Amino acid sequence: MKTVILIGANGKMGKAALTGLGKHKVITAGRSQDGCDYQVDITSEESLRKLFKEVGHFDAVVNTVGVCEYATFEEMTEAQWMTTVMSKMMGQINIVRIGQEYIADKGSFTLITGILNLKPIPFAIADATTSGAIDTFVKCVAFEMPRGIRVNSVNPTVLAEAWDVYGDMMPGFQPVPSTLVGKAFERSVDGFITGQVILVDA
Amino acid sequence: MKTVILIGANGKMGKAALTGLGKHKVITAGRSQDGCDYQVDITSEESLRKLFKEVGHFDAVVNTVGVCEYATFEEMTEAQWMTTVMSKMMGQINIVRIGQEYIADKGSFTLITGILNLKPIPFAIADATTSGAIDTFVKCVAFEMPRGIRVNSVNPTVLAEAWDVYGDMMPGFQPVPSTLVGKAFERSVDGFITGQVILVDA
Repeated sequence: MKTVILIGANGKMGKAALTGLGKHKVITAGRSQDGCDYQVDITSEESLRKLFKEVGHFDAVVNTVGVCEYATFEEMTEAQWMTTVMSKMMGQINIVRIGQEYIADKGSFTLITGILNLKPIPFAIADATTSGAIDTFVKCVAFEMPRGIRVNSVNPTVLAEAWDVYGDMMPGFQPVPSTLVGKAFERSVDGFITGQVILVDA
Repeated sequence: MKTVILIGANGKMGKAALTGLGKHKVITAGRSQDGCDYQVDITSEESLRKLFKEVGHFDAVVNTVGVCEYATFEEMTEAQWMTTVMSKMMGQINIVRIGQEYIADKGSFTLITGILNLKPIPFAIADATTSGAIDTFVKCVAFEMPRGIRVNSVNPTVLAEAWDVYGDMMPGFQPVPSTLVGKAFERSVDGFITGQVILVDA
């Protein structure tokens, strides 16, 4: 049994990840503490450091948080770009950058991206661009990890459980059940793979 | 003959791009005006807007500027990450975002990335991550461009002309002549392709 910090546990993607972490001790964290063990803001180095110190020993971090703004490229402002960059991209880099100081030997980080960098749709240019950045980041940073630490990303298509919200934006996409996405997180946490983008698509 | 704005004309990559732009009217711009027609800071929306307004009519923008910080992942600070993100990533997104308001119908943008997102080396995680972001950006944003405007990136390996500077960092890499990289810029500016990452490797 591993101790796993799940960031974004309240969200639909967090709940999907949780379905794959059943054999572990899961410590939950979220932007609001609401129902979670800890509150954390991934855009803040200080907030992340506080979380990792307070948890103490942990073997894995699974992140499902990444705030994205949606607009046409023409209408997306610099501020909207930066909200997305600072959360989905730099926030996730922060998790690995700071977390590597605290995580146990042979620990793992699993980040979240999303299919829109491979299957573009309107309004999602910032989401897609930052997903591309994080998928690249995990492929490259894996070679630098000390002490057997691993880094992967899960890049899922839309969840069946979120189809009522996103379905209209995503014509021709086939949603997948949360439990299938949970398997991807399980494969990252319990496998030996590193530097991998685990695609979950139908 | 097209009017092409070449940003970063003073650099080695700018000179490489220039070898492929021989049949066009090239207007040069750089961080310092030193030898260039215009001075521009791609991290500033205001500076870019001023450049595009002053040039007036143009058919293509070729960018070869992207400031990157180099350090091990463990030692790279948030400030170093942000320098790289704001220049190589957001600066290039700015060029397209603002430039699309001014560029002629059927114009083109050609951005610069670099081979290290595909062939990682030590110290280059921020360079690689932002190259991955921009390669993804051009693949996705191309679908949104109005008036027949095209967007591509050139992703070259190390230039023969820069091998004395970078060679020690890049064991096992085969440098390519600037004129070959110039061909990639020419293919982007004079072709009909869009949403493409033009890889130049040996």
